[in-house]
Amino acid sequence: MQEVATRAGVSLATASFAINGTGARKVSEETRHRVQAVAEELGYRPNAMAQNLSRARSSFIGFITDSVATTPFAGEMIRGVQDAAREHGYVMLMANTESDPRTFHDVASMMLDHQVHGVVYSTWYHRQVSTPTGLSGIPVVLANCYTRGDRLQSFVPDEAGGGRAATEILTAHGHRRIAFINSDLSAPATTGRLRGYRKALQAAGIPFDKNLVLTTTPEQEGGYTAGLRLLQLDPRPTAVFCYNDRVAMGLYDALRTRGLSIPQDMAVVGFDNQEVIAAHLRPALTTVALPHYELGYLSLKWLLREGAPTTGEAPEPTRTLVPCPTVERSST
Amino acid sequence: MQEVATRAGVSLATASFAINGTGARKVSEETRHRVQAVAEELGYRPNAMAQNLSRARSSFIGFITDSVATTPFAGEMIRGVQDAAREHGYVMLMANTESDPRTFHDVASMMLDHQVHGVVYSTWYHRQVSTPTGLSGIPVVLANCYTRGDRLQSFVPDEAGGGRAATEILTAHGHRRIAFINSDLSAPATTGRLRGYRKALQAAGIPFDKNLVLTTTPEQEGGYTAGLRLLQLDPRPTAVFCYNDRVAMGLYDALRTRGLSIPQDMAVVGFDNQEVIAAHLRPALTTVALPHYELGYLSLKWLLREGAPTTGEAPEPTRTLVPCPTVERSST
Repeated sequence: MQEVATRAGVSLATASFAINGTGARKVSEETRHRVQAVAEELGYRPNAMAQNLSRARSSFIGFITDSVATTPFAGEMIRGVQDAAREHGYVMLMANTESDPRTFHDVASMMLDHQVHGVVYSTWYHRQVSTPTGLSGIPVVLANCYTRGDRLQSFVPDEAGGGRAATEILTAHGHRRIAFINSDLSAPATTGRLRGYRKALQAAGIPFDKNLVLTTTPEQEGGYTAGLRLLQLDPRPTAVFCYNDRVAMGLYDALRTRGLSIPQDMAVVGFDNQEVIAAHLRPALTTVALPHYELGYLSLKWLLREGAPTTGEAPEPTRTLVPCPTVERSST
Repeated sequence: MQEVATRAGVSLATASFAINGTGARKVSEETRHRVQAVAEELGYRPNAMAQNLSRARSSFIGFITDSVATTPFAGEMIRGVQDAAREHGYVMLMANTESDPRTFHDVASMMLDHQVHGVVYSTWYHRQVSTPTGLSGIPVVLANCYTRGDRLQSFVPDEAGGGRAATEILTAHGHRRIAFINSDLSAPATTGRLRGYRKALQAAGIPFDKNLVLTTTPEQEGGYTAGLRLLQLDPRPTAVFCYNDRVAMGLYDALRTRGLSIPQDMAVVGFDNQEVIAAHLRPALTTVALPHYELGYLSLKWLLREGAPTTGEAPEPTRTLVPCPTVERSST
């Protein structure tokens, strides 16, 4: 699948949608044909390996999450793990712990009892986690989370790269007075996106102005109140990078109450490309996508790679940053 | 859990949130204390049965869905199945088929190989399905879907009851000229919600006017265009029942372009109580909730009930309608 995506010049997620013909995102007919042609040329068959379900060790891989399946946010990670499992003939055993340590313990025991080949552990938002206990003896990889000191291999979004890309959309449109509505929660996304914002300003020769950085609850309501505060700045910024799409949705409401137009009076960029919101705001929101599908897919591919150790931790674990692609729509 | 919820006078979902202390919905401190007091009084211990994981037949139950885990919509169904499984000491094996028959076949074989006690089959939106094949010999229950002739036990949302309740919020506020923006897709929700709308009008002595029923794509964009059409009606309706919250979100945008206020100029009711949208529109949307948690929980409870047959179909399968509760906010 990775090779198909590269040769067709599309993302892994797009290649998967094009080949499997399902999923919520839309892929143009042209893209679908191109990807399918490449897949055929390369002899890609998603089910080829899945035929062989009996294996020396086990046909299972475990996927443990805090609440990825039950939170309407990062479900594409499940599709990524599932597709990679299928390509390798594994069946995914999945469990949500809802962050309850007892549930985690029960689930880990169950997975060891059933001799899973390895475990992908993931969280619904990007954060640091304690090293999962109770899984010794089998390989573990982290998706969308990491441990202090990176003692386990992990795949996480490149928040700083995404923040920089978001801001550069605005500098490329000629904006010089660009506000950033950041989250007031401590998280890698908060520090990373701010770092990216500053780097983009620097690259464009715009001095950093701390008055243009507001913090708020990273929800619609927070975006609304921060938006009203931001409109009192003099001179008013001409563009805003929002911590996430929900904040942008609240900012839209604040701008409307003042009769301001997007992007004429104020350009807006979000972050997350959250499915129910981003494409459906009016005007449709320019944003940066979280690579949920890729995080799931790449972490399981790493776990099942050729020559991987079959027990214990990886020899040289690293925190791999996965790019966050921009999605330009009508708000910039 | 069911008994705790009943005695505390809350829904199953609320009882679960209060007891497990997690989940995206918020429960007031007062409710949490009340539910926890009842749970303590009844000696409810979520993990009590889960201690005993070894069973004569199997400790697994299967949960097969089309794309419930990967679509940001019905994830609460997973929590419902998971909680019921845990109460009975079962571990949930979950798989998404993404509506691919080959994947379904593989998953069903895997589940039979691992001697699951039974299977819950569910779909991300309420619809008719073919009787799942490849699962003979074990009990199967359907959640959020049903078969023609109801040959299997199923639990589905009471769409007509929900449509009636939505419309009755508007008649109770004195509205007489109430439009309905329905979906243009053929689905139980489309026919059921329309039936409920008509019943509510009839109960209020309001004659049905087919000009007040518009159909559209059940997305934000459809709500926007239908909203603009609706504003050309003369006299203009004073209230609108929308097929879903996404349509309501588009209608909000249409009303704003005409400078109309919600609910002063037009009252709006949605359907679904979709998490990212409903509570966060401005004004917050009055809507009707889909009972996803209950659909999952009740279906697995039925499968694991005392005296249930251990193989084959249920003796007298029925389609059980699960109520859709109203959630009143500020748009009515």
